[in-house]
Amino acid sequence: MTSAVRSAAAADFDARMESWRARMERALDARLPGADAVPSRLHEAMRYAALGGGKRVRPALVFATAATLGIDEDTVEAAACAIELVHVYSLVHDDLPAMDDDDLRRGRPTCHKAYDEATALLVGDAMQPLAFHWLATDPKLPPSPAVRLRLIDLMAQAIGTAGMAGGQAIDLQSEGRTLSIAEVDDMHARKTGAVIRASVMLAAECAPQLPPEHRASLERFAAAVGLAFQIQDDLLDVIGDVATLGKATGADRERGKPTYPALIGVEASQARMRRLHEEALSALALFGDGAAPLVNLSNWLLSREY
Amino acid sequence: MTSAVRSAAAADFDARMESWRARMERALDARLPGADAVPSRLHEAMRYAALGGGKRVRPALVFATAATLGIDEDTVEAAACAIELVHVYSLVHDDLPAMDDDDLRRGRPTCHKAYDEATALLVGDAMQPLAFHWLATDPKLPPSPAVRLRLIDLMAQAIGTAGMAGGQAIDLQSEGRTLSIAEVDDMHARKTGAVIRASVMLAAECAPQLPPEHRASLERFAAAVGLAFQIQDDLLDVIGDVATLGKATGADRERGKPTYPALIGVEASQARMRRLHEEALSALALFGDGAAPLVNLSNWLLSREY
Repeated sequence: MTSAVRSAAAADFDARMESWRARMERALDARLPGADAVPSRLHEAMRYAALGGGKRVRPALVFATAATLGIDEDTVEAAACAIELVHVYSLVHDDLPAMDDDDLRRGRPTCHKAYDEATALLVGDAMQPLAFHWLATDPKLPPSPAVRLRLIDLMAQAIGTAGMAGGQAIDLQSEGRTLSIAEVDDMHARKTGAVIRASVMLAAECAPQLPPEHRASLERFAAAVGLAFQIQDDLLDVIGDVATLGKATGADRERGKPTYPALIGVEASQARMRRLHEEALSALALFGDGAAPLVNLSNWLLSREY
Repeated sequence: MTSAVRSAAAADFDARMESWRARMERALDARLPGADAVPSRLHEAMRYAALGGGKRVRPALVFATAATLGIDEDTVEAAACAIELVHVYSLVHDDLPAMDDDDLRRGRPTCHKAYDEATALLVGDAMQPLAFHWLATDPKLPPSPAVRLRLIDLMAQAIGTAGMAGGQAIDLQSEGRTLSIAEVDDMHARKTGAVIRASVMLAAECAPQLPPEHRASLERFAAAVGLAFQIQDDLLDVIGDVATLGKATGADRERGKPTYPALIGVEASQARMRRLHEEALSALALFGDGAAPLVNLSNWLLSREY
């Protein structure tokens, strides 16, 4: 593939990401309770937090996995909405004063700043069951109750103590302490990795005839992408600051959070990220050209400019 | 029934409540992740909040409904655990400084006092998916995936904006305002009524052959008991204080919360409570003597001394 062809593919993929984002905006808007329905302020705050922004990386993983497996977007749309909703709930709760105490998110006041703390707490609390409600009842997901139960349990495990909430707890406990690389890997595998894995595996569950080795490949892909994505995030925190602020430490280090660059240095972190990126792509080899949506998404995700 | 027979029945029922409480303690202890497993502090805080106390009213409703329908306790145990867990999560979040800011619960420091606010936030956040995980996977619940999906969606709707979280939001918006009796009824139907209804209906869903009129009777029973229970709570807040503190206003009024006694007066509240109690019992007529567990539980619940 020449570099001209490659950039044409990249431009095509930008368009695809944009169409997924637009689909998600419509899909969430249609599914979230209206701000005119009681309790209106809570519904309004839920819509404020969930609509109008975000890269929608996790829904893109759902749609790209579905495309790789030949499942149409309508079938997995509710799963993409559910996964994005639990991601949004986690951001709303993370931004609270008791956690990261952030005033801005995506350039707008965070939910508790735009509303109030109690409402932001309830926004997150109410988003969780809404995600499960969608998985249990959406008419376009595969109708099999057994498949839906697997979707629900995948989600439940991804956001519980073995997943996202557990990763947050490890993060809280780790501030100011020195963690081993294995501990940091475990923290991220839960905190961000579990929901990234769930994004891929929710779509995979919608293909019930999927051979076990294909499923295992998708698991390997998701684990590698999830960790690479996190290392990149840590790197952006460090290197983004070098470029823009002229200093080598970012918000994570200021908070005493364990990061890969702090643990193993910038160059080793970059090398590890590249290795994980390659691992992710090689896990897709089994799917041949059909995996183009996931290959393109990985490349798009893991080469954000900085 | 003579009054001697009636008090023998009440004593028997006390023993039954105690055995359900003991069962719940064992069941939750066995199902909650161990405090030795990572993330240990979060698991420990979850166990602190969920174990060692509480009247276990909602599990008692699950078990009494099961007994009325001839379903054994093992079959519904996971449903009782799930309903108690979401109740505990709601207490942990309600006690947070951003909500009611309570330091004590059941005579012990609240979760955020015993641990910290961030941990208490995560305790609630992690309890929700754990409840859904139990409903999706517990080996003793009815195996039918369709039944489990109904359990899951019942729970999801009971704790979302149409249920508990929505009731909390209405409560927040109402402080200092004067609500109509219909608005207060709606607030309580969501805030406490929805989970009480779910306690009864989760057990009912475990009897898939239940005739529609039996199901409808249980719905009427649960709605009446739920509202009566709330009116009683409001009355205890007022009258409990009269007796013990010598003043006619309690914590609810101090917070500007709308209560039934404040809206319609103490006597009209007591009369309404008695009417709802009778309505609850008459809804059970269809089940004949088989409904004794639910009849006894209603009597036990709605005649707490004050």
